[in-house]
Amino acid sequence: MNNIELNKLSIFALGGVYEIGKNMYVIQYADDIIVIDCGSKFPDESLPGIDLIVPDISYLIENQEKVRALVITHGHEDHIGGIPYILKQLNIPVYGTRLTLGLVKGKLKEHRLKGTVFHEIKTDSFIELGRSFQLSFFRTNHSIPDCVGIALQTPEGTVVHTGDFKFDLSPSNKQFPDIHRMAKIGEAGVLVLLSESTNAERPGFTPSERLVGEKITDAFQKATNKIFLSTFASNINRLQQVVDAAILTNRKLLLLGRSMINVVTIAQELGYIHIPDGMLVESKEANQLPREKVAVLCTGSQGEPMAALSRLASSTYPHTEISSGDTVILASSPIPGNEKNVASMLDHLYMLGAHVIHGSGVATGMHVSGHGSQEELKLMLTLMKPTYFIPIHGEYRMLFQHRLLAESVGVEKDNIYIMNNGDVLDLSGNHVQQTRKVTAGNTLVDGLGIGDIGNIVLRDRKHLAEDGILVVVVTLSRLEGTILSGPDIISRGFVYVRESEALLGEVGRLVLKTIADLQESGNDGKWSILKHRIKESTSKLLYAKTKRRPMVLPIIIEV
Amino acid sequence: MNNIELNKLSIFALGGVYEIGKNMYVIQYADDIIVIDCGSKFPDESLPGIDLIVPDISYLIENQEKVRALVITHGHEDHIGGIPYILKQLNIPVYGTRLTLGLVKGKLKEHRLKGTVFHEIKTDSFIELGRSFQLSFFRTNHSIPDCVGIALQTPEGTVVHTGDFKFDLSPSNKQFPDIHRMAKIGEAGVLVLLSESTNAERPGFTPSERLVGEKITDAFQKATNKIFLSTFASNINRLQQVVDAAILTNRKLLLLGRSMINVVTIAQELGYIHIPDGMLVESKEANQLPREKVAVLCTGSQGEPMAALSRLASSTYPHTEISSGDTVILASSPIPGNEKNVASMLDHLYMLGAHVIHGSGVATGMHVSGHGSQEELKLMLTLMKPTYFIPIHGEYRMLFQHRLLAESVGVEKDNIYIMNNGDVLDLSGNHVQQTRKVTAGNTLVDGLGIGDIGNIVLRDRKHLAEDGILVVVVTLSRLEGTILSGPDIISRGFVYVRESEALLGEVGRLVLKTIADLQESGNDGKWSILKHRIKESTSKLLYAKTKRRPMVLPIIIEV
Repeated sequence: MNNIELNKLSIFALGGVYEIGKNMYVIQYADDIIVIDCGSKFPDESLPGIDLIVPDISYLIENQEKVRALVITHGHEDHIGGIPYILKQLNIPVYGTRLTLGLVKGKLKEHRLKGTVFHEIKTDSFIELGRSFQLSFFRTNHSIPDCVGIALQTPEGTVVHTGDFKFDLSPSNKQFPDIHRMAKIGEAGVLVLLSESTNAERPGFTPSERLVGEKITDAFQKATNKIFLSTFASNINRLQQVVDAAILTNRKLLLLGRSMINVVTIAQELGYIHIPDGMLVESKEANQLPREKVAVLCTGSQGEPMAALSRLASSTYPHTEISSGDTVILASSPIPGNEKNVASMLDHLYMLGAHVIHGSGVATGMHVSGHGSQEELKLMLTLMKPTYFIPIHGEYRMLFQHRLLAESVGVEKDNIYIMNNGDVLDLSGNHVQQTRKVTAGNTLVDGLGIGDIGNIVLRDRKHLAEDGILVVVVTLSRLEGTILSGPDIISRGFVYVRESEALLGEVGRLVLKTIADLQESGNDGKWSILKHRIKESTSKLLYAKTKRRPMVLPIIIEV
Repeated sequence: MNNIELNKLSIFALGGVYEIGKNMYVIQYADDIIVIDCGSKFPDESLPGIDLIVPDISYLIENQEKVRALVITHGHEDHIGGIPYILKQLNIPVYGTRLTLGLVKGKLKEHRLKGTVFHEIKTDSFIELGRSFQLSFFRTNHSIPDCVGIALQTPEGTVVHTGDFKFDLSPSNKQFPDIHRMAKIGEAGVLVLLSESTNAERPGFTPSERLVGEKITDAFQKATNKIFLSTFASNINRLQQVVDAAILTNRKLLLLGRSMINVVTIAQELGYIHIPDGMLVESKEANQLPREKVAVLCTGSQGEPMAALSRLASSTYPHTEISSGDTVILASSPIPGNEKNVASMLDHLYMLGAHVIHGSGVATGMHVSGHGSQEELKLMLTLMKPTYFIPIHGEYRMLFQHRLLAESVGVEKDNIYIMNNGDVLDLSGNHVQQTRKVTAGNTLVDGLGIGDIGNIVLRDRKHLAEDGILVVVVTLSRLEGTILSGPDIISRGFVYVRESEALLGEVGRLVLKTIADLQESGNDGKWSILKHRIKESTSKLLYAKTKRRPMVLPIIIEV
């Protein structure tokens, strides 16, 4: 390898493109690597039993002596959820703003992880990392406070990573977007822009969070009974607006749900949310107050079956209940995949006689996106006027739409790279190349196991879920080959035994016949053949009789 | 039971309320029962391995000598999908319009069911059933032709069942809604109206199907390459509009997907779709034509993994492929629950370089609902001006909204009944009562089994899917109680064995210790205790080591 090759700038994603979630981007120059974000995502039904998905960090482990920092843009799960799992394998310093670090620390505490070095980012921070990098930051707006974009100066030029953003020009928390700093960065010249694509399919300009505050205040003023409001716990600006509406209407506030209590506690400690003394009450106290004097702020806006609002909707939450005439506000819209859970929860809320106001369905203004729409993405592209553009954070069609937006504001078509996780963009002098790949993919977390669940196990789980299992146990005499016991046939998830005795009896006779046939043919010493034959003949019989294909597990014992 | 009680009118649902799908409504007077519709619905992930859900018809089987007819309002799966399963248990005559019966017959043929008596309904039919009922019909519009609503005269008064409907005042197939007949029925007096609630949450008036035709024509005229259009196969009016657009732009038509070919064949035979001779081509011929001379009409608009469009999107469909520059039209919107499959398919279509136009997302006019919105539901209520109203077809919140709509047009609040499946409304003279219940619920179809999968089997399947199974086999001597073989430990869906030898070894030692402990305590003769102890200690160990809870299945063999 010659020197030029060694000293190139390389950019790639280990997560977050061709998908939503588990964001992780890597920027390398020579012997210096910095990692931006480390998110997680939830599995869909194709991954039964899996708790969480985090990025495959093989590349970082192989190059661990080069990794200078993990820089976090903001405190959402798809940007910080993977941190505990990665830090278990790789001890690197973590950089983030005050709130972001507060949330990360809470997470590491739960995992009992110690020894991590933290560095707090301020918006005027200037950080040198390794021999190659200088980092500065610009404030953005999103559905959590304290978000930053990153400007990374490298020997090849400046790389900008936007993080998640919208342009909320009238933010409810007065954290205005740093447009002048963005303009300066763009003016000085941006080599590569990585910008988020979540809402690239959505025309227009995302409304200000302030709008939601107005709607919440309006609903609080109209409500004549207890109010239950559910939203994403991390949307601290929205929580503040709920607090303000409760103050205005003279209600005490009850918090329900672990993550709501966690986030509010951290945000209060760090000064991101302001709740007057004595305003927060416990359920016991809330139950003694008149219903019109209480507002409940709870988790569960996505209809998650174990979260507070779902359990309130099904009247199974301890000490607190929704009554006829109460107002229930869902300040959220369903994340794709959660539509059915939310709909079912809404049904139960209506059945309780609640007055239900929800952000989805007919436009109520009870939710606005935290991501910029097309005009905002174009504004970011215009401010940064990058030479090269890489759309990030999104499924393919969103990246594709973002490419079209970039073209529309004047970025050269040939300079836009839609890259999958692991695809590397190498830049050196005037030379740009996108041919290399590094290892990237999903690491599955199941209980305490990280990455130990493979395709065979998942295939078996899916098979077991479809049609269950039938275990056939036969004990043979080692000397004579005679059957000493069995066949014993045990099924789980296939048929209810009492109703299927005849069928299982038939299986038993078939197994006996299979063994006899094989012994006659002189092949009886070979267990693997016997097992295979039992499996084959049993599966065939069961499919013919039931059109089902349970997993058949023959067990031969010799004594 | 006195005579008045015997001669009451009873109305209840066996499916279709508090849910979407498996519609089935029963109307009984004395010894006469008629059944309206017999649908199926698809299971969600809470029912692993289940193929289909149909209504529980215990009540009809118990009263089979009274059942006079199954009357079908239209040919959609949620109205006809359960027919083969019901007819296997109950041979009753089936009434429906020409197209509806054609689709039902196709279905029964697949199930090799013979001996059913069919009666064709025309819109001017007048049918007497049993001693109590006279039926007449009125034409409605929906996303399939030949839909009817039913007016059922009974000794207590007229019951109207709308079926699914919208008011398409400019229908593309010229099957205008029978508004004058509806007005007459209402004028003559309606005792009870059962009206569908699917779009009760949607304000306004659903646009005409003709709009979709205009958009399709427009897209066909702009396309410069091959066109792929996917929509619901049963939307025959839309298929006709696709045929017309292909004629206009001089394209041959290729049909892909079993249900598309089935429906078009039946609709052609019965005269519901008109395709010029020589216009339909097979894939071989289509491949020899210039790309701009071909339109492909295919199944898979819901992203179903095995349907034509998904396989085309992943380039795994035989003999036909989508190329860069082709136009792909999804004339549909995702049914709740299918959003992720559709999104993933869209990604693949974009990756192929197709020009994608889809009904969901940004409004393209490529899909309109087949169900009437709020103003149309109010129009039906106004035309029928019923004394009593029962909202049907929908989840609770839709029924609830429909109740509010009925109140807004003047139906007495106390005369509106939201009833769950199995809740009976009894009417007799001026007396109305809603206290009785009949058996109602889900009958699960799995392979050849109808209703034989119970809760235990489903619970086992879910457990197996989450964490797999661990089978522990031990062979004991009947006489001495010594261990002759084992413990053999076999796992499926839990851990990949090669990576977990140490853990499984530990389980083996624990099982040996459990047996020894039990034998020492003198309890060794009791298998059930031994099994229980092995299960308990093994589960505990596995959870401590892995935080997973596989199903543990101990098998003790005595020889």
